[in-house]
Amino acid sequence: MKMFNKVVIIGTGLIGGSLGLALKKQRLAGQVIGLSRHQKNARLAKKVGAIDGIGASLDVVADADLVILATPIDTIIDLALRIVKKLKKDCIVIDVGSTKERIVSKLSALIPNFLGTHPLAGSEKKGIANLEDSIFKGSICIITPTIKTNNYALNKVKLLWKKLGADIVILSAKKHDQILALTSHLPHAVAFSLINSIPDQCLGLSSSGLRDTTRISSSDPNLWSEIFLSNRSNLLTALSSFQSNLTALKLALKSKNKRRLTKILLKARKKREKLG
Amino acid sequence: MKMFNKVVIIGTGLIGGSLGLALKKQRLAGQVIGLSRHQKNARLAKKVGAIDGIGASLDVVADADLVILATPIDTIIDLALRIVKKLKKDCIVIDVGSTKERIVSKLSALIPNFLGTHPLAGSEKKGIANLEDSIFKGSICIITPTIKTNNYALNKVKLLWKKLGADIVILSAKKHDQILALTSHLPHAVAFSLINSIPDQCLGLSSSGLRDTTRISSSDPNLWSEIFLSNRSNLLTALSSFQSNLTALKLALKSKNKRRLTKILLKARKKREKLG
Repeated sequence: MKMFNKVVIIGTGLIGGSLGLALKKQRLAGQVIGLSRHQKNARLAKKVGAIDGIGASLDVVADADLVILATPIDTIIDLALRIVKKLKKDCIVIDVGSTKERIVSKLSALIPNFLGTHPLAGSEKKGIANLEDSIFKGSICIITPTIKTNNYALNKVKLLWKKLGADIVILSAKKHDQILALTSHLPHAVAFSLINSIPDQCLGLSSSGLRDTTRISSSDPNLWSEIFLSNRSNLLTALSSFQSNLTALKLALKSKNKRRLTKILLKARKKREKLG
Repeated sequence: MKMFNKVVIIGTGLIGGSLGLALKKQRLAGQVIGLSRHQKNARLAKKVGAIDGIGASLDVVADADLVILATPIDTIIDLALRIVKKLKKDCIVIDVGSTKERIVSKLSALIPNFLGTHPLAGSEKKGIANLEDSIFKGSICIITPTIKTNNYALNKVKLLWKKLGADIVILSAKKHDQILALTSHLPHAVAFSLINSIPDQCLGLSSSGLRDTTRISSSDPNLWSEIFLSNRSNLLTALSSFQSNLTALKLALKSKNKRRLTKILLKARKKREKLG
């Protein structure tokens, strides 16, 4: 049996489109309808089989059993406000945004069956040209219920992500944002700053080290400035922690303290090994 | 015809061992003899066919046509001092260290046919277990002659690296160290500091962004503290430049200046695209 008769995905970019593909491949939805601000993206999503049809307007959510908000994070709350009156009573709504506290606090008050979710499966390659149905397999999906969340919706959303191949982690939205500031937003801020420190004429004299370290700096500037701003305070804390570590390394170097320097590098290596 | 009758590689780790394999595969040497502080490494190098024989002592350089110094950078100068009296008059000596100014200034005064070389083909995976003959194909090899360098040695070393598949870039040792501080040593310092900023309990909630950004932080701590110390002043300058870029991003974030923040991220993305 299908988990949902009708699914509406608003935002058919990399994550929204990949969700459509995966839902259809796993036969979890009777019908998947997609909407995009960019008509071209929606048409492409249909062409590659990520959605069955293109919604003419937001009214298409009226008889949906699941609505997935997969637009850039600064648009999610407005979007929810525009659809809330149109939804069926038992319609489940999830978002897939990279920061959760603001969105979850607004939307859980607004929509009874809302759940914040965050699949840790993005890519610096944004958009439908890079969409895959398998990016969720073996990935982690963080789900951020609140005390208001009803169990029916929570269990159904957990099952949905499990069927898409993700391992579920349950966190409060607040904790989510604190952790992701460190494990995702900080590495992005560091990568952007690192590549900006390399003069153009030196770029050619580099190897895989610089390439890997800065891969995510080709992420979408608009998307990421919104993510940074939406998790501003946690990211500022994470940046301070990083700056302290950088200063410690710099001081060991300045004072030619090889023992101290090696100790810092050894700590890093051991930590990196835990990451796998 | 072989380029060299007898090649001695001192240090049969990742780079030394890979050079042995590549020299033999390309039939550039009549005989490749390897030496290592670690007898086990030398035996392994012989077993995988990276060297034809193991040298009993440094005396083995006596009739060598090419000596490759492939030990950690802090040992190269001492090593050269120990072999200089044993070398044939026309023996060519190269090192493959990651920093060049100190080594080249000492050794070019000591050995008439010395050339500093730096293949940009390392890996965070150190040691013979990871050795490959193809790591030089399509890579860049920087060669750092001085005004004392004789043309015969320079041309032969250029040809050697070309035959191993590398594109040659000629730089002064000073310029080399300035550029590599930015394109290699800085990314390493940043990666070490980044992973050290992530609490252990958060490591599991990360995706490919953190993994790629910190891959090189599992590089060898002893090797890299020596590299950092040997290029201390240039690396401190590179770190300051990076810190300025990080501060600019932090200030844009602090002041919620989305326009400024997006501009920084867009600059990064454009620069990253040039890296390819």
